[in-house]
Amino acid sequence: MNIPIIVYIQGKVLMIEGVLMLLPCLVAAIYRERTGLAFLFVAVVCFLAGFLLSRKKPENSVFYLKEGCLTTALSWVILSIFGCLPFVMTREIPSFTDALFETVSGFTTTGASILRDVEALSHASLMWRSFTHWIGGMGVLVFLLAILSLSGGSNFNLMRAESPGPAVGKLMPKLRSTAQLLYVIYFVMTLIEIAILLISGMSVFDSIALSFGTAGTGGFGIRNSSVADYTALQQWIITIFMLLFGVNFNLYYLLLFREVKRAFTIEEVRVYFGIVLFSILSIAVKMHDYYASVWDNLRTSAFQVASIITTTGYSTANFDHWPTFCKMLLVLLMFCGGCAGSTAGGLKVSRLLIGMKTVRKELNAYIHPKSIKKIQMDDKPIEHEVVRSTNVFFLTFMTTFVLSVLVLSWDKEDFVTCFTAVAATLNNVGPGLSMAGPAKNYHHFSMLSKYIMMFDMFAGRLELFPLLILFHPQVWKDFLNVQKNTKGKA
Amino acid sequence: MNIPIIVYIQGKVLMIEGVLMLLPCLVAAIYRERTGLAFLFVAVVCFLAGFLLSRKKPENSVFYLKEGCLTTALSWVILSIFGCLPFVMTREIPSFTDALFETVSGFTTTGASILRDVEALSHASLMWRSFTHWIGGMGVLVFLLAILSLSGGSNFNLMRAESPGPAVGKLMPKLRSTAQLLYVIYFVMTLIEIAILLISGMSVFDSIALSFGTAGTGGFGIRNSSVADYTALQQWIITIFMLLFGVNFNLYYLLLFREVKRAFTIEEVRVYFGIVLFSILSIAVKMHDYYASVWDNLRTSAFQVASIITTTGYSTANFDHWPTFCKMLLVLLMFCGGCAGSTAGGLKVSRLLIGMKTVRKELNAYIHPKSIKKIQMDDKPIEHEVVRSTNVFFLTFMTTFVLSVLVLSWDKEDFVTCFTAVAATLNNVGPGLSMAGPAKNYHHFSMLSKYIMMFDMFAGRLELFPLLILFHPQVWKDFLNVQKNTKGKA
Repeated sequence: MNIPIIVYIQGKVLMIEGVLMLLPCLVAAIYRERTGLAFLFVAVVCFLAGFLLSRKKPENSVFYLKEGCLTTALSWVILSIFGCLPFVMTREIPSFTDALFETVSGFTTTGASILRDVEALSHASLMWRSFTHWIGGMGVLVFLLAILSLSGGSNFNLMRAESPGPAVGKLMPKLRSTAQLLYVIYFVMTLIEIAILLISGMSVFDSIALSFGTAGTGGFGIRNSSVADYTALQQWIITIFMLLFGVNFNLYYLLLFREVKRAFTIEEVRVYFGIVLFSILSIAVKMHDYYASVWDNLRTSAFQVASIITTTGYSTANFDHWPTFCKMLLVLLMFCGGCAGSTAGGLKVSRLLIGMKTVRKELNAYIHPKSIKKIQMDDKPIEHEVVRSTNVFFLTFMTTFVLSVLVLSWDKEDFVTCFTAVAATLNNVGPGLSMAGPAKNYHHFSMLSKYIMMFDMFAGRLELFPLLILFHPQVWKDFLNVQKNTKGKA
Repeated sequence: MNIPIIVYIQGKVLMIEGVLMLLPCLVAAIYRERTGLAFLFVAVVCFLAGFLLSRKKPENSVFYLKEGCLTTALSWVILSIFGCLPFVMTREIPSFTDALFETVSGFTTTGASILRDVEALSHASLMWRSFTHWIGGMGVLVFLLAILSLSGGSNFNLMRAESPGPAVGKLMPKLRSTAQLLYVIYFVMTLIEIAILLISGMSVFDSIALSFGTAGTGGFGIRNSSVADYTALQQWIITIFMLLFGVNFNLYYLLLFREVKRAFTIEEVRVYFGIVLFSILSIAVKMHDYYASVWDNLRTSAFQVASIITTTGYSTANFDHWPTFCKMLLVLLMFCGGCAGSTAGGLKVSRLLIGMKTVRKELNAYIHPKSIKKIQMDDKPIEHEVVRSTNVFFLTFMTTFVLSVLVLSWDKEDFVTCFTAVAATLNNVGPGLSMAGPAKNYHHFSMLSKYIMMFDMFAGRLELFPLLILFHPQVWKDFLNVQKNTKGKA
């Protein structure tokens, strides 16, 4: 196992985190908050530690999928551990577990909070929370790929481990260009949202923080009422941007290169908007006597549906009090998630599509046993390997889900709380139902449950396998062997 | 499509049902109940209708998987429709929907009841309810195979459609002998249970009815308190027999031929008992302060675990009031189900085993990308095709589950009720939680929900595909074409 390169990349990641932490420092400077000092201190520590770790570029920079997964999983853990330190140091979240939970929730773009009173936080901390969403949305390693040059298949193995969806799409022939392009699209779209929110009359701070949360499909609110207190127009703007960030970024790429027709025939995107439309309308029908006007009803339905399917997790209504059908639909949308190649979590629409097509094919096989048609998507046959790994993904996902729910239920929580808390963390949504509902928070869970949910948040963001192989005995054996050999040489 | 043979077999099935219905007639005669007349009338109707349909054996008796599935699905529907008529005629269950629900629940060995007061039923009806479990447990078509001779691959296609589990095991070289042997084992084991219950001091009627429910892993009680009012010894006897009927019948076959060592190394059976043991102990630990003595605790835990994992559905405690962990574990056991090749429902232990091994293989592939080891079970490699179809089965199962829950939630029921009602019917268990809990019944659901759950019960018992292809457009086209051609000829 190529440990030097893994360490080297962790170093780079830490250096980037140090730089990124200057944003909350800046905010603290503007609002003259003393919490800024904690951020500055941690930023310097990150930068120095990172610098030390990545002082020397290893000669052998080639590494395989195994190393790619390990690098990814470790870098997310390290990012979170260092990222939570300012919260602990400022005593805004005194418990380390809670601070870590909040930060993991941030980076994984979950948005599940342990805070009972968000508004008590300093501006610097609020901005850092929202900023972690933005960083986590596209991924730090994708960013690293955009600025770093590694040789061989290394890049691809990193990209494969961090990118959401059943198969990694290379937009451009060179992976580095793909990574750069993705970040440009992401950056520009975020800027547009900020600009539109500013025009709508929102304050600068709120526009930036909420846009970060939307872009990363994170969902940390900066008010206790999440987005409920903003104007109707502002809610619509956020609704639309949430949906846009849940779209496969291939669409924007195609639009950028003027392939409008191809862009709007992407099957996944069409199904995605189909599901959104169906959900909004059926919830609106079920809730027709809950709201004074049809527009209020539609706005609230649309906001909640957009927020949940893109796994953002903002809310403008306490949907825990909605009729069972609406709640059930929202829970299903949590599992559905947005498109592959977006910043959204969940299983992803394309995986569900492949799943449905597999079922249809099986039914057809009962009628025409000799047919050997391949499953198609966007008029192209899907490789057998993709179908297989999608099926295995479903299985692994369900297993992780079921075991997590079982552990959580050991606490005194009720059935719905356990079920939806795991659904909301594993799918990186944020709020669930009952005691994990939008009007509640995750503070009351036991320490064990919190660590399980942190695991789920990582598992959801990294799409299981990169995280799970951390627990494979072979990896530990390899690691120990390398350590032993290194010591032997010294 | 070979419609004549499908009709012919439906005729045979109806004739068998007519004969089987003589049992409740006999019971009515013994207890001098007038309800017996209704049973006698329906028995005669079944027999005559069946006789007319199967008057002439079709020349072409070969048929394919498609016809096998259709035959199976239709025969279960017809069995249920005729089987529910006595309940309607005696006005013991006046609503046709309710009577059908009860009968479908019986034949599919679910045990979900719409009755608020079971004890108000006549002995004849009670016996018929329990008897449907026994009939449905092993399957009518398997019985038909045991007594009927069809040529070619027909038998296998029937067996494949009705038998539970990922792959059909032929115990004997000839399928007819396999079917006969299965029924002999089933019959003898039921007799043994009846005998032991009689020795324990239970009445003849109760022993027979409860043994029918145990053998088919059905679960209709004949008292409002299910099995709670019987003695501790009798509860233990039933616990053990429930577990035995959830075991892969291959085990008994091997024991019969003195291959004891091979019998006890069947991986599925060992994992099955492992899960049972783990569940009993962890529930007992969690509930240690609920019961006066350790033995009461163990007996209650063991009974409920055995009842739920084998998808029987008897109860000796209202587990809806248990701690969340215990309820969650029971719900998971519903999905787990017993072994393939038993009378139990659910996903089946062997499918879960294959699933787990697939996940493990995928994880290994991340570490050793070039390894091409096949998944093994009982030290033999599992065919790629079995793994694939198991994965598709999981997918189809989840889809059916999710859509059913969504439809049910349109009613005013709560989250847990909808979720567990579908879990309990699709897995052929019987009682769920909350408003579908062991102390409640299914009467309060809407008509739509009841039909959805009937669909689920069939889907669970027939393992999805044989039922689902009934809804395939091609089947209807074939059917209409044949009808047109026949008319053209006449």
